[in-house]
Amino acid sequence: MRGAVLYGPRDVRFEERADPTIVEPTDAILKLSATCVCGSDLWPYRGIDTPTQPTPMGHEYCGTVEEVGAAVRTIERGQFVVGSFFASDNTCEICRAGYQSRCPHLQYVGAGGAQAPYLRVPLADGTLVAARDRPAAREVPSYLAASDVLGTGWFAADAAAVSPGKTVAVVGDGAVGLCAVLAAKQLGAERIIAMSRHPARQKLAREFGATDIVTERGDDGIARIKELTSGLGAHSVVEAVGNQDSMLQAIRSTRPGGHVGFVGVSHGVELSGQELFYSEIHLHGGPAPVRRFLPKLMELIAAGKIDPGKVFDLTLPLAEVAEGYRAMDERRAIKALLLP
Amino acid sequence: MRGAVLYGPRDVRFEERADPTIVEPTDAILKLSATCVCGSDLWPYRGIDTPTQPTPMGHEYCGTVEEVGAAVRTIERGQFVVGSFFASDNTCEICRAGYQSRCPHLQYVGAGGAQAPYLRVPLADGTLVAARDRPAAREVPSYLAASDVLGTGWFAADAAAVSPGKTVAVVGDGAVGLCAVLAAKQLGAERIIAMSRHPARQKLAREFGATDIVTERGDDGIARIKELTSGLGAHSVVEAVGNQDSMLQAIRSTRPGGHVGFVGVSHGVELSGQELFYSEIHLHGGPAPVRRFLPKLMELIAAGKIDPGKVFDLTLPLAEVAEGYRAMDERRAIKALLLP
Repeated sequence: MRGAVLYGPRDVRFEERADPTIVEPTDAILKLSATCVCGSDLWPYRGIDTPTQPTPMGHEYCGTVEEVGAAVRTIERGQFVVGSFFASDNTCEICRAGYQSRCPHLQYVGAGGAQAPYLRVPLADGTLVAARDRPAAREVPSYLAASDVLGTGWFAADAAAVSPGKTVAVVGDGAVGLCAVLAAKQLGAERIIAMSRHPARQKLAREFGATDIVTERGDDGIARIKELTSGLGAHSVVEAVGNQDSMLQAIRSTRPGGHVGFVGVSHGVELSGQELFYSEIHLHGGPAPVRRFLPKLMELIAAGKIDPGKVFDLTLPLAEVAEGYRAMDERRAIKALLLP
Repeated sequence: MRGAVLYGPRDVRFEERADPTIVEPTDAILKLSATCVCGSDLWPYRGIDTPTQPTPMGHEYCGTVEEVGAAVRTIERGQFVVGSFFASDNTCEICRAGYQSRCPHLQYVGAGGAQAPYLRVPLADGTLVAARDRPAAREVPSYLAASDVLGTGWFAADAAAVSPGKTVAVVGDGAVGLCAVLAAKQLGAERIIAMSRHPARQKLAREFGATDIVTERGDDGIARIKELTSGLGAHSVVEAVGNQDSMLQAIRSTRPGGHVGFVGVSHGVELSGQELFYSEIHLHGGPAPVRRFLPKLMELIAAGKIDPGKVFDLTLPLAEVAEGYRAMDERRAIKALLLP
């Protein structure tokens, strides 16, 4: 098969790779219906954490089970499934507490490179969730979104303790931030403030439920959030970028006793203990335990209640994966869907 | 009257100070039944954050209302009351959400210097809680503890999401850490691990409900906590020291998805965003909103269900306040009670 391989900064190639095979008896092989480029793929693409050797890329996926290992019990050939970027057993104490992203048996599914027509998924029973029915083609992007950006945005809103009546601010207008807006709406937030300067993203934020748009950043952005919240700050703030400015933006936009949910992969962030102490916020985040939310998210999609697939504003044949990276890097696209 | 004044590192003097008077119509003047030296008083005493001019000391108090301002409605002369180190209105949105320690009308009661026979308390109606009955002399130390160390330890346990069945670890064996052990017991923790190398403190931790004592620190301490928790870490960890080592000790002793409640006044702590991200813990803390917990704590004390006054292992006449500082600084005493 042919799939995406990162060779170095801004050098993604679509080239021949070995077909995946069952390695462990708990594996499944999927034929992917769709895959995509993640905001976090841009870190190595841009030369930050770039791997030292050619590396298969991609960790978001949905598709049909093609083959299962001898020990797989619940997942069956022919099912349409979605899974997270992390494979987890979903039976241990940590998984049962909802932290499948820190399962002691964790494996990174993306190691197999999901920007390809086929993918090996370890711990298939724990990792994959089967859709009740085979989705229509128009639903596939939403299921694909559930695999990462929706699951991550939902976790961020959950970590930020979004609940009915609260005011929520979202720092970051990438696909995860936008999905956090959608999640906040579903979780009953009364007011949802999206921080964005980008017209297309502002528009989608509004569609997803944002009631206010703040274009200011830094101290001005914080001042604007305070203005909108009687001087107190938001109850819940989602951080979906991962750098020092965005973390401080999130922390300082939160009222005392409020919650920050941070899911932007942290790069170069250093937090002052004293600031955290006196801010008196709750801080929680990390790699999203998407598996915790998948069954619910897939139900909402099947019922037509949410349409997170709208984050894909560019669809390309998989062979043009390099253009998907370019378009996202240059912020011409929010998120690129790739069709094998 | 005569009270404690800090002149410089290790220079606490007991000297003549002006009697407090009603300044605002919302003030009350208390005649203190007891006061004490706080672990946080040791920071300036030891030369860290030492004030540049002679400063009245002390912020823990309980006693009898001597006089109230014209606008005070619920607090009355003659009542036995306890309050927090922070005066708060207890009616604003932040106070009603339980964060009286960040009330927009916050005032530091300690500015009046509670290591004295009389104290002015601003915002008396919001700040003070009256005991149902006048306490017996033997109960006074417990009410005094509620004013800060018990309220702070309780907040720490609450911030660490202690609940029935959980394993809790407590970093710091000062009075706050010991009160956090007591709180964890009351909140139903199944296992309570106190980290302490000090025999008298270990003993009191056991009395308060600790089931295990860990004497190791740093990586060894973390390894020991993991050993005691099937390799996972504690569900809830209280940090009651405030330095870099104790914060990392707390964070690294917590399982993924677990909670750290930190109440040690933060000094020189810098946290890596990446470590927080991948640890996937919940982090919450700050100056305790003691007022939130006071009514419940005072009920527990009145009912004889808790005896936090045991943290006072040294009782001195107020005139010997300097010896109280010395004894705590040298760790000869856990906490010094001062009788005016």
